[in-house]
Amino acid sequence: MDLLIKNGTIVTSEETYTGDIAVKDGKIVSIGTDLKVDAKKVVDATGKLVLPGAIDVHTHLAMPFGGTVSADGYLSGTRAAACGGVTTVFDYPIQRKGKGIVETVQERKDMCDAEACVDYAFHCCITDLNGGAILDEFEDAVDYGVTSFKCFLVYKKEGMMVDDGTLVRILKRAKEAGAITNIHAENPDVIDFNIEQFKAEGKTSPWYHYLSRPEFVEAEADKRAVHWAKSVDAPLYIVHMADKEGLEAAVAAKREGHNIFIETCPQYLEFTCDVYKREDGRNFVCSPPMKDQESQDALWKAIMDGSIDTVATDHCPFQSYEKDWGKDDFTKIPNGCAGIENLYPYMLSKANEGKISFNRAVELCASNPAKIFGCTQKGSLTIGKDADIVIYDKEKELTISVDNMHSDYDHTIWEGIKVQGYPVQTYVRGTLVYDEGEFVGTPGFGAFVKREPQKYGLE
Amino acid sequence: MDLLIKNGTIVTSEETYTGDIAVKDGKIVSIGTDLKVDAKKVVDATGKLVLPGAIDVHTHLAMPFGGTVSADGYLSGTRAAACGGVTTVFDYPIQRKGKGIVETVQERKDMCDAEACVDYAFHCCITDLNGGAILDEFEDAVDYGVTSFKCFLVYKKEGMMVDDGTLVRILKRAKEAGAITNIHAENPDVIDFNIEQFKAEGKTSPWYHYLSRPEFVEAEADKRAVHWAKSVDAPLYIVHMADKEGLEAAVAAKREGHNIFIETCPQYLEFTCDVYKREDGRNFVCSPPMKDQESQDALWKAIMDGSIDTVATDHCPFQSYEKDWGKDDFTKIPNGCAGIENLYPYMLSKANEGKISFNRAVELCASNPAKIFGCTQKGSLTIGKDADIVIYDKEKELTISVDNMHSDYDHTIWEGIKVQGYPVQTYVRGTLVYDEGEFVGTPGFGAFVKREPQKYGLE
Amino acid sequence: MDLLIKNGTIVTSEETYTGDIAVKDGKIVSIGTDLKVDAKKVVDATGKLVLPGAIDVHTHLAMPFGGTVSADGYLSGTRAAACGGVTTVFDYPIQRKGKGIVETVQERKDMCDAEACVDYAFHCCITDLNGGAILDEFEDAVDYGVTSFKCFLVYKKEGMMVDDGTLVRILKRAKEAGAITNIHAENPDVIDFNIEQFKAEGKTSPWYHYLSRPEFVEAEADKRAVHWAKSVDAPLYIVHMADKEGLEAAVAAKREGHNIFIETCPQYLEFTCDVYKREDGRNFVCSPPMKDQESQDALWKAIMDGSIDTVATDHCPFQSYEKDWGKDDFTKIPNGCAGIENLYPYMLSKANEGKISFNRAVELCASNPAKIFGCTQKGSLTIGKDADIVIYDKEKELTISVDNMHSDYDHTIWEGIKVQGYPVQTYVRGTLVYDEGEFVGTPGFGAFVKREPQKYGLE
Amino acid sequence: MDLLIKNGTIVTSEETYTGDIAVKDGKIVSIGTDLKVDAKKVVDATGKLVLPGAIDVHTHLAMPFGGTVSADGYLSGTRAAACGGVTTVFDYPIQRKGKGIVETVQERKDMCDAEACVDYAFHCCITDLNGGAILDEFEDAVDYGVTSFKCFLVYKKEGMMVDDGTLVRILKRAKEAGAITNIHAENPDVIDFNIEQFKAEGKTSPWYHYLSRPEFVEAEADKRAVHWAKSVDAPLYIVHMADKEGLEAAVAAKREGHNIFIETCPQYLEFTCDVYKREDGRNFVCSPPMKDQESQDALWKAIMDGSIDTVATDHCPFQSYEKDWGKDDFTKIPNGCAGIENLYPYMLSKANEGKISFNRAVELCASNPAKIFGCTQKGSLTIGKDADIVIYDKEKELTISVDNMHSDYDHTIWEGIKVQGYPVQTYVRGTLVYDEGEFVGTPGFGAFVKREPQKYGLE
Repeated sequence: MDLLIKNGTIVTSEETYTGDIAVKDGKIVSIGTDLKVDAKKVVDATGKLVLPGAIDVHTHLAMPFGGTVSADGYLSGTRAAACGGVTTVFDYPIQRKGKGIVETVQERKDMCDAEACVDYAFHCCITDLNGGAILDEFEDAVDYGVTSFKCFLVYKKEGMMVDDGTLVRILKRAKEAGAITNIHAENPDVIDFNIEQFKAEGKTSPWYHYLSRPEFVEAEADKRAVHWAKSVDAPLYIVHMADKEGLEAAVAAKREGHNIFIETCPQYLEFTCDVYKREDGRNFVCSPPMKDQESQDALWKAIMDGSIDTVATDHCPFQSYEKDWGKDDFTKIPNGCAGIENLYPYMLSKANEGKISFNRAVELCASNPAKIFGCTQKGSLTIGKDADIVIYDKEKELTISVDNMHSDYDHTIWEGIKVQGYPVQTYVRGTLVYDEGEFVGTPGFGAFVKREPQKYGLE
Repeated sequence: MDLLIKNGTIVTSEETYTGDIAVKDGKIVSIGTDLKVDAKKVVDATGKLVLPGAIDVHTHLAMPFGGTVSADGYLSGTRAAACGGVTTVFDYPIQRKGKGIVETVQERKDMCDAEACVDYAFHCCITDLNGGAILDEFEDAVDYGVTSFKCFLVYKKEGMMVDDGTLVRILKRAKEAGAITNIHAENPDVIDFNIEQFKAEGKTSPWYHYLSRPEFVEAEADKRAVHWAKSVDAPLYIVHMADKEGLEAAVAAKREGHNIFIETCPQYLEFTCDVYKREDGRNFVCSPPMKDQESQDALWKAIMDGSIDTVATDHCPFQSYEKDWGKDDFTKIPNGCAGIENLYPYMLSKANEGKISFNRAVELCASNPAKIFGCTQKGSLTIGKDADIVIYDKEKELTISVDNMHSDYDHTIWEGIKVQGYPVQTYVRGTLVYDEGEFVGTPGFGAFVKREPQKYGLE
Repeated sequence: MDLLIKNGTIVTSEETYTGDIAVKDGKIVSIGTDLKVDAKKVVDATGKLVLPGAIDVHTHLAMPFGGTVSADGYLSGTRAAACGGVTTVFDYPIQRKGKGIVETVQERKDMCDAEACVDYAFHCCITDLNGGAILDEFEDAVDYGVTSFKCFLVYKKEGMMVDDGTLVRILKRAKEAGAITNIHAENPDVIDFNIEQFKAEGKTSPWYHYLSRPEFVEAEADKRAVHWAKSVDAPLYIVHMADKEGLEAAVAAKREGHNIFIETCPQYLEFTCDVYKREDGRNFVCSPPMKDQESQDALWKAIMDGSIDTVATDHCPFQSYEKDWGKDDFTKIPNGCAGIENLYPYMLSKANEGKISFNRAVELCASNPAKIFGCTQKGSLTIGKDADIVIYDKEKELTISVDNMHSDYDHTIWEGIKVQGYPVQTYVRGTLVYDEGEFVGTPGFGAFVKREPQKYGLE
Repeated sequence: MDLLIKNGTIVTSEETYTGDIAVKDGKIVSIGTDLKVDAKKVVDATGKLVLPGAIDVHTHLAMPFGGTVSADGYLSGTRAAACGGVTTVFDYPIQRKGKGIVETVQERKDMCDAEACVDYAFHCCITDLNGGAILDEFEDAVDYGVTSFKCFLVYKKEGMMVDDGTLVRILKRAKEAGAITNIHAENPDVIDFNIEQFKAEGKTSPWYHYLSRPEFVEAEADKRAVHWAKSVDAPLYIVHMADKEGLEAAVAAKREGHNIFIETCPQYLEFTCDVYKREDGRNFVCSPPMKDQESQDALWKAIMDGSIDTVATDHCPFQSYEKDWGKDDFTKIPNGCAGIENLYPYMLSKANEGKISFNRAVELCASNPAKIFGCTQKGSLTIGKDADIVIYDKEKELTISVDNMHSDYDHTIWEGIKVQGYPVQTYVRGTLVYDEGEFVGTPGFGAFVKREPQKYGLE
């Protein structure tokens, strides 16, 4: 046996019990009480929680945006992931007009392969059907292991938006290919109208970033996407849900039996639009923006009652000097915030406080992401699965700071936030990559996760 | 006294009773039992219903479309109106890019003035904000008597569509001006995608006109328009509602207290999409198309339970040879059907059958249109209002045919439909314009109805 | 002509216009502008509103209750009605076990006939099916002019409650007879449990009257009654709706197309449960009790959006010394408050303030009650109807006090409430019964209103 | 090690994987791939499913009813259970007036102890508060291991019904004690009215059993119970849900976040009311009766979408001669049908057909019952839990017949029903009790399950 984690409190999405976990060749091979096995490495987890590693299904690493590139590349981003208990990272390559999906992903895979500190997978953002050729490539993409395609309903001027006809085509073909369509939901025309009006009135502070993309601008696109998915009976995954009205519409459709999946992010659970009134408001500029208290309350309710499926980060940090570009004009601020290292500690600290159960935290951050996106070897402490394991100390406290994080950014919106409980070790396929505050893994160790096509909906 | 209509069964939207109506200077001056007045003209209405004239709030007369012009001009269209018991007609001038509202309306008013056989009013279709100047003209338009502006959410390629940002601007400014925004709800991108696909597959019969604009394509736009109207708290009037899902969304918003008004048309109440399978299917091509039985049932339910506010015609007939342009390609068929002369007889025959009350037919075709669109002198048999009166014989039967109609078209979708009960006389401001099957009015007699701005919403 | 009311602002449930009303033999015979008729009596109503008389469909006159009799008998009660603009009063005789309906009503009719100052009608409360004989008497009751039967779902110990099986029988048979079933909705077992508990804890102030019959106790019975009415497809009229949850359930059923009608009372619109904390809290004790602010807000919303059908008073005052019986034990306070003279002034003052339209006030207090309960000659200023007319001065102010009311009670919950606008004259069938603060009618003038059976539901 | 089940396909409510299960001292001690352990007994489960034993949370064994006793006593009932893969049975002792809870349960426990072939637990039916003393006994009952109390909302004449005041008291006190309230929902008064009417009309066949207790009679009581539970914020478990309207109301409340749990039974999933038209209709007489197809469809939808929490049997068979008592009068038929041995095979065969997943079948029949009712050692194949295990052969077919069942009844409603897949072995705490069609256990081996109090609602 390669590894034996003894006597921890094992937490799955359904159960909590005490036991040992034995790992061989990167897989979990047995779980039991007082397992009698020889192992090269034995870890005593007495008094600790033993959890499946988190899967952050929403990151933008090394992403070109607004004349720069997001501050975390594949190395620093996945290093930070490891140190936050994330054992698989999903990145979002964006198709350039005319390019194919596999070509788009392959290019990023090549970049990532040598640097990845944890396992990784790719969605692919579709910006152009290439006259329909892209649709015909869906099966190939699925064979390649990419089973989810993202559509922006916003960023029209930036050339990334797809119109409703294109979205409908993608929804239908993705379903046929055993894939799912992810969407970023905001309405560009109304945003543009708001921005134009605010600029004309000289209103350029980050507060107007929020006011130009208020709740109803996101809700409209949520509702529209849900409408199309229902109409053509195709699965839909809504990324970074941040508003109440859209959430409720999506949940209602889900309850009618439609395959609608909902993701939110830690930043929407922790912050409200009030941050945009702060001195450092520009650092919080992301799209969609944080919303009002009523929306945050609705998100938490859905976290608690099971309506939200996943929490992921939309990790896309920029450096302070880049954020400063928009000091006098919120439209010039690069959009995005950090989170990859904060996701699991944040959600687990909420479990530690009793707001949700640890089982539910595991479900949101590990088992649901694996199920929805076809990572059949991931997301669960079960015989035969990859030994992606986090050991968590409920007693350890940390005040988050740019100084104790493992990214390349120079500031974080999480600065000063205290979490009760923290990961002490992270294993990827049985290999220790993070240990008591230190990254101990090897860039390039992370492997591409070839995902399986899905038939959404049974039971 | 100029006119005394004696002993008829007077029907208002609320009451039914027997009485005499006396008219002077075009106004109703007294109503009573056995009125003792001298009158130049006395009409015995014993055994007949006496109703307010209908207001057809949706017509396209002399409208340029697809390389031709709709078959009824202002003369023939309003002549047909008179013969169908319609005493006020609303036409829809369409702003050409760069033109102003009053300018647009004035041009059509000039055309109409000399020809109108009944009274007339105008909505105005907005296709271009002219850099915002159009919004600044709303108050002038309202002063001029035009208190409703229409937005197409479809006809993108044709250059008539407004995007969501523009729609939101119009909704807000219209409200401020005491006006209302009308919308034609269909989604152009999905229609275009469908058409492209059907054409590629050689599917070009009228049945594919329906399939390219199915229920959910209309419903999406209905729901989106309702969303924006709610979000900016502005009144909205949805024209020619034809599908169940959009209808239900609009009704739900209305019940939450939003000022959402809903119109449907007789063709959607009488025909379903099955007509597009008929030999003469192309004659029924209009947008939105007739929908399935489930939608028709929902429309009738809403007619019966009060959820629909108005019935109007979208009258826009084309000649057979024009419809034939699309014999081999449904996209070449000019969109539109006749109805102006059938509206009131059709709805009243449904009352005569007992499906709705006569009061409700009056409400849908006369009193609600007047209230919603600020025709303060119209729509009701009340002291002081214009004497726009229809005398209706419940026993008279008619089989509708192009031969007994008074338009200029050469065919009608209503051919062969029997109605039980028919108008025998129509009076506009006390003047007889239709008598027992014959038009007896005078082109040019019809007057422009200057409408009042509205504060929507009280009670 | 007997009476000519000139130049008033005539208000119906739908229209507001200026005109004259001519009355002959107690009926409205003509309405018009500047009517040229000779009349025995001419009233100049310039600047005044001319309204249909109100119909108070919920009163308990001379009602035996808890060892005493309600403070207003038929004379003083209908005198007060006249002075408050109420021209028809509905009283609620209660069947004594073993008695028949006509017998029960006849007894009260005999009492009322000699004393009635305005017209009157009767519902009948059913407490015992007499082995089914009562059901067989429904047709006779309808022939007699009594077309509504009330069931108490509460007052179990008092022997007035009917169980659900009995309610279902009544609902079905009433429908067959063209009648409607009224219900008082509260749940006796839970009330009794609460009372028992409060008494055991020494909690005996009026505040515990409210807490023993809280919102959910009323809501349960509302929902149950709606359930049975829907299940057997019978019309239902819920009296004195006072809570939000029950209201919303009833409104939802109504919107699905069921014939559910909803009444509330002025006291629920003006007061909340906070009154029970007042020194004089016992004077406000009635059942159901006033509820919390949230319920009051919901009632007003339903008043404004059309969901509530009628406002009536549940007029049932007791004298101070009787209320005092419960000084140390809320269960000993006779249940009931005054209102008959306040109904119309209160609702019209709310219209005067702009909260609702005058048309809506007329609809709630006059035209809807007439329609729902088959008073075909009442409730509307229409040719041929009874000339039950109120002239209303929008400028007149009154501070309500027991001193300026016309009942026999010695206190009123309305003491000190100011109303802006007040009736100045009341006519019953063309006869002046109230004039500028004084009752000028004749006891015994009021006539029994024989009501017509109804087919509920068409449009 | 005592037992090693090798190489089976292990199915939990969340996961499906291949592995070995090792059992010692009645507990699961390890699970793994190719476990290297010595065991007294080794079972090769290659190609078989390995499932947690089912928990039938609704049976009536040896229950006195209508002058007789249900056909299965504790021995034959639990023997049949074992042979159907049920490893824990919940029985429903009924409090006799004046008796206490522990006293009531103790009496049945004594009967059961010597006979039980599988483990067993008790709910307790409350019929009388004994002046409140029963409520004060709730904590003692919970200490004893009985954490659920049942209220009949029906059987009023039989003296078993509790009124709404009593129900509310029980709901509140049960919650305080960490217990839950179960309810049987039907409305007695309306049933009695229906029966009276049918008997008067000579309608006495089993079809009238259904018609006297139609959908809306059950729905009313469901809705009422949900109302009270919501109003006092207490957990509620609705047994044998059989109708759509009640189901939907309960599901709606659950989605609002209330702790409402829903059970249905195999008979409602397999049969509709049409069985009452059959020659042998009387054999299917149970309460609530099977409902119409629309209700069955709604139940299946809720089975599939997760809205229903548990499936249990309401096992309460009677012999043919007893059923015959009602040959000429459906009211004389003892109410109840068999099911204890059919529950798991039936639900698993539906999984085998692909209608639901095996995971969902396990959730409904094992893990949810354990969680809801505080059986902390049961319901899941997890380290440390009782080794209650079923080995299931997906290929084995069985046609159910009274001849191959293991009860004492002489007929079964399941006669002739084929199931694809069948249990081949059942283990209770690691001891084989059923093997390939034969009961191989020992009466008296079954142990009392002392349940834990619950805090309902977190997450």
